[in-house]
Amino acid sequence: MKVSVVMGSVSDFDSLKEMLDFFKEMDIEVSLRALSAHRTPGELIEYLTEMENEVEVFIAAAGKAAHLPGVVASKTLKPVIGIPVKASTLDGLDALLSIVQMPKGVPVATVAIDGSLNAGILAAQIIALKDEKTATKLKEYKNKMRLEVLSKEQDLLKSKGY
Amino acid sequence: MKVSVVMGSVSDFDSLKEMLDFFKEMDIEVSLRALSAHRTPGELIEYLTEMENEVEVFIAAAGKAAHLPGVVASKTLKPVIGIPVKASTLDGLDALLSIVQMPKGVPVATVAIDGSLNAGILAAQIIALKDEKTATKLKEYKNKMRLEVLSKEQDLLKSKGY
Amino acid sequence: MKVSVVMGSVSDFDSLKEMLDFFKEMDIEVSLRALSAHRTPGELIEYLTEMENEVEVFIAAAGKAAHLPGVVASKTLKPVIGIPVKASTLDGLDALLSIVQMPKGVPVATVAIDGSLNAGILAAQIIALKDEKTATKLKEYKNKMRLEVLSKEQDLLKSKGY
Amino acid sequence: MKVSVVMGSVSDFDSLKEMLDFFKEMDIEVSLRALSAHRTPGELIEYLTEMENEVEVFIAAAGKAAHLPGVVASKTLKPVIGIPVKASTLDGLDALLSIVQMPKGVPVATVAIDGSLNAGILAAQIIALKDEKTATKLKEYKNKMRLEVLSKEQDLLKSKGY
Amino acid sequence: MKVSVVMGSVSDFDSLKEMLDFFKEMDIEVSLRALSAHRTPGELIEYLTEMENEVEVFIAAAGKAAHLPGVVASKTLKPVIGIPVKASTLDGLDALLSIVQMPKGVPVATVAIDGSLNAGILAAQIIALKDEKTATKLKEYKNKMRLEVLSKEQDLLKSKGY
Amino acid sequence: MKVSVVMGSVSDFDSLKEMLDFFKEMDIEVSLRALSAHRTPGELIEYLTEMENEVEVFIAAAGKAAHLPGVVASKTLKPVIGIPVKASTLDGLDALLSIVQMPKGVPVATVAIDGSLNAGILAAQIIALKDEKTATKLKEYKNKMRLEVLSKEQDLLKSKGY
Amino acid sequence: MKVSVVMGSVSDFDSLKEMLDFFKEMDIEVSLRALSAHRTPGELIEYLTEMENEVEVFIAAAGKAAHLPGVVASKTLKPVIGIPVKASTLDGLDALLSIVQMPKGVPVATVAIDGSLNAGILAAQIIALKDEKTATKLKEYKNKMRLEVLSKEQDLLKSKGY
Amino acid sequence: MKVSVVMGSVSDFDSLKEMLDFFKEMDIEVSLRALSAHRTPGELIEYLTEMENEVEVFIAAAGKAAHLPGVVASKTLKPVIGIPVKASTLDGLDALLSIVQMPKGVPVATVAIDGSLNAGILAAQIIALKDEKTATKLKEYKNKMRLEVLSKEQDLLKSKGY
Repeated sequence: MKVSVVMGSVSDFDSLKEMLDFFKEMDIEVSLRALSAHRTPGELIEYLTEMENEVEVFIAAAGKAAHLPGVVASKTLKPVIGIPVKASTLDGLDALLSIVQMPKGVPVATVAIDGSLNAGILAAQIIALKDEKTATKLKEYKNKMRLEVLSKEQDLLKSKGY
Repeated sequence: MKVSVVMGSVSDFDSLKEMLDFFKEMDIEVSLRALSAHRTPGELIEYLTEMENEVEVFIAAAGKAAHLPGVVASKTLKPVIGIPVKASTLDGLDALLSIVQMPKGVPVATVAIDGSLNAGILAAQIIALKDEKTATKLKEYKNKMRLEVLSKEQDLLKSKGY
Repeated sequence: MKVSVVMGSVSDFDSLKEMLDFFKEMDIEVSLRALSAHRTPGELIEYLTEMENEVEVFIAAAGKAAHLPGVVASKTLKPVIGIPVKASTLDGLDALLSIVQMPKGVPVATVAIDGSLNAGILAAQIIALKDEKTATKLKEYKNKMRLEVLSKEQDLLKSKGY
Repeated sequence: MKVSVVMGSVSDFDSLKEMLDFFKEMDIEVSLRALSAHRTPGELIEYLTEMENEVEVFIAAAGKAAHLPGVVASKTLKPVIGIPVKASTLDGLDALLSIVQMPKGVPVATVAIDGSLNAGILAAQIIALKDEKTATKLKEYKNKMRLEVLSKEQDLLKSKGY
Repeated sequence: MKVSVVMGSVSDFDSLKEMLDFFKEMDIEVSLRALSAHRTPGELIEYLTEMENEVEVFIAAAGKAAHLPGVVASKTLKPVIGIPVKASTLDGLDALLSIVQMPKGVPVATVAIDGSLNAGILAAQIIALKDEKTATKLKEYKNKMRLEVLSKEQDLLKSKGY
Repeated sequence: MKVSVVMGSVSDFDSLKEMLDFFKEMDIEVSLRALSAHRTPGELIEYLTEMENEVEVFIAAAGKAAHLPGVVASKTLKPVIGIPVKASTLDGLDALLSIVQMPKGVPVATVAIDGSLNAGILAAQIIALKDEKTATKLKEYKNKMRLEVLSKEQDLLKSKGY
Repeated sequence: MKVSVVMGSVSDFDSLKEMLDFFKEMDIEVSLRALSAHRTPGELIEYLTEMENEVEVFIAAAGKAAHLPGVVASKTLKPVIGIPVKASTLDGLDALLSIVQMPKGVPVATVAIDGSLNAGILAAQIIALKDEKTATKLKEYKNKMRLEVLSKEQDLLKSKGY
Repeated sequence: MKVSVVMGSVSDFDSLKEMLDFFKEMDIEVSLRALSAHRTPGELIEYLTEMENEVEVFIAAAGKAAHLPGVVASKTLKPVIGIPVKASTLDGLDALLSIVQMPKGVPVATVAIDGSLNAGILAAQIIALKDEKTATKLKEYKNKMRLEVLSKEQDLLKSKGY
């Protein structure tokens, strides 16, 4: 099982770190690229065409006037997940609206601003529908997360005297 | 293949019409409910538990402080698609932020404000990963849509003399 | 007299410090938990059920798509106070709208972004309606606050030569 | 049991209708006034002073730069509920921020834009803490509301063929 | 002298009317198309390639997550003018940010929301740099506009008695 | 000639520094206070009543739900200038809307967020209408400002080689 | 005593009606023009120069990128009042920010969106500082307004049975 | 070939650095000034008049209530490019709306907040329409940019092990 992850600029890599670690934990293979919808449209299209039959889900991350997820969505029949990246102005609102407000016919499954971990979990949920192994690992992950929340809570309450 | 569609209020039905028609065209079975995360939490949880092993995807539509998609997501391991519905103030921005800005660990795949058709197409794209028939129908739908755009363009240009 | 305070994440604790100190000063007992509406829904519901007959007021603090206060409100007949917490993007506007724009039937008494002290005072005002001791202490607190404002003013004007 | 309801302008009356009906149903007595914090500050202060020992809760509704709830809160030790009213521009966002963003020390329990019914329910929840009769009626109201949601759902699903 | 005008949907035509009339008045030839960056990407690229050596300026109008102007800009070395179109929610803010916040390297010259006339004038100003006839007509147009403002003012002041 | 300057909190002093220096330069006398509309309403009203016949203009600065300028305006027939102060969230937008969106009948002359110098110049412009000395000094100030802009420009262009 | 009122477009006249009626009631003379900072800059500068020694206050109303008040302010030493006018998109927010966020040195006294009556009252308050007759009339106006609020309140309460 | 670049304040220089370097690389001559539409309107008009026949394009950068680009546009028949500069509050949104929302008849070609490099590229695209040398250099620049994106991508993927 494989996903394609495209970021609009190499500077978006850090905000994707958490998701890439998650995919390792899930044993989901990743094809990673940093291609711009505007500066390298040719290479982008070529890459997307190549991936069409190799991956289950496309994930695209971009900031500002973030067209990358929409461009990916216009080129594939696979589900596309979009991650709005916060840039130096407007706190990511421009990226969020540029990704989520897609016109009729071409959806992008949008997650929170800088929400790459959730993009990863969403991709895993989609893959889990047809892959029993991912379904099992995801169930374990969700449970581990739940236990971590409860354990962190215990530490906090103890340390603060509640 | 089946999806669950939950709206937060019966008044959201009209904005879902386009999606429900799409599902008919795709031969995707729909379980439809109007349950509120706040006013009928018990019935909602009961319904979600019942559906967990019956549907591939959950779709939840709500306006204002739209918690429904997040509540659904907290209860399932299946992908959840959220539709922000425009209410009488703030033009749907409150619903959009309440749905898309989900915290780490519990994603909601958010589409445009009042974007139910795209929620439907996204669900179909997810189902198509494991269901060849849906994949074929979706390809036909996308192509039909493309032809309609081109045909409407012809009509416009002709009627306006371009 | 007792209040329940639930934060959506242990990282919200710092923004609650001022309120917790206020409750100590007021001799109002606090039950404090860090439970997520999305990651630990089961534990949350269990805790809320347990508290229903033990506390006068529920206070819930959360950031981003802040559903916690609404989920608490859907489970209790007691007044619920919501504190929007500022997160890394959008300056708390997402949390504010997710909390204040509750649909008909299930109110959350919302205070300012990161306004935990005011949440505490509001809880004390509610408790004071039936508890004379709290009413007296609150009157003293308000007067002390007034005198502090005036004393700080004197210091400022003197130090600046006005 | 009595609440005071102040609106900033007679034109706000319509948006309060639902709350006033609710109070009738709850047998909660209402003292209703239309006084402006800016145009009739003297009459407002006089009225608030008079009410201080007569009511349990103050409710204030205003639009635009909505100072009324804050002015009420500066004059009382009782809980104050604020209702932002949508005016001809900015969709009520100005009123919302003017009411909810109160500075430290003087909280206003803010509900949704044009959310008068929820202001009423919140007031009833506060009163119910010391008044068994209101508590009982509120429980009945919440249950009735729940049944209405379910009944409306049945009607919708039947009429639409789901 | 020729410009290419592309709208993202036939429903954008009305908002372009004023610009198309302006181009007639200026004797600037127009190639008009209604092609979607997302639904008909192939036809769009084909058309843009064809036009690259035929037009001086590209003008693209789109609403919501308005990627069309950016996609055009990624395909040409000619100046690209973007017109954000107001859609049914968010008052055109989504389209504005999706068009104006282009990343480094690929500018779109953005005009006001629904500002097609200004897009036309801007295109004429660009063409006028190399075409004396357009420069002359533009000067006349600007002067005519000035006289109309003054004449409308006279009518208003007279009719109102100032 | 005298102005009254009231800030809502001692922490607003720094943002007023530039204006207070300007008033010194203009020889305009200042009565400075730090009084809260919400925490010290009594002292505020007392102070305003005292000043009514002593000052030409009131200036009020406040952040968040900034009611101070409006409360001052409700108590005087003199012009009131409001300065929105940026606080820790929402970038001053809450203060701006709380000050500028005053209802009919009670204006506040609003300047930019953290724009205290402009509040000072506006006060001086108003005073200059009846005070020749201030008019002369203001003319000199404006000219000095103009020369400074030009001199800074020369320094910049020289240092950068333009 | 005279004020100058400039609107950016004849279409702004209706939103100024209430202010013009107020000036009649106050016996304040008005010089009214409809001149655009962008389309008729020459005529505007000429008119402002002519008025500089004839009026006490300038009032400028404009929508969208509302530069008119700022341009007036750059040309006069008299106080300038700006009225943001709501246009077809963005609910007047663009006009508000374009007027109120003036840079250091050149203030515009900004009132609410479409707040022409308040602009008139503010101008009268400024004039009243040097004109006893206007001061008296203004006091009467404010009192009349107060009585109207109270009388409208009585009518409302009576008609609704409170 | 020459462009005129005007910034509203010397403090805007840093945000223009990238554009000025680009113009050097393109061999496009620059006339650079720091003149304020509000504080030095006379010098600005004088400078613009002087430049009218010397430059192909005007570029104006300003923050807050950014009127400079609009004032330039009101004085020339040449294309005007506007750069919104982010200031200390509101993240550049005020500057963006003040520049892009120009009224009918006087366009400003607006680029992203702090987007000076794109303003430079847009100017070069306009100049390239009549200047073969610039057209060639621009094509080279775009290609170099493309290769840099691809080379940075290779470095990233290698260093991260993808």
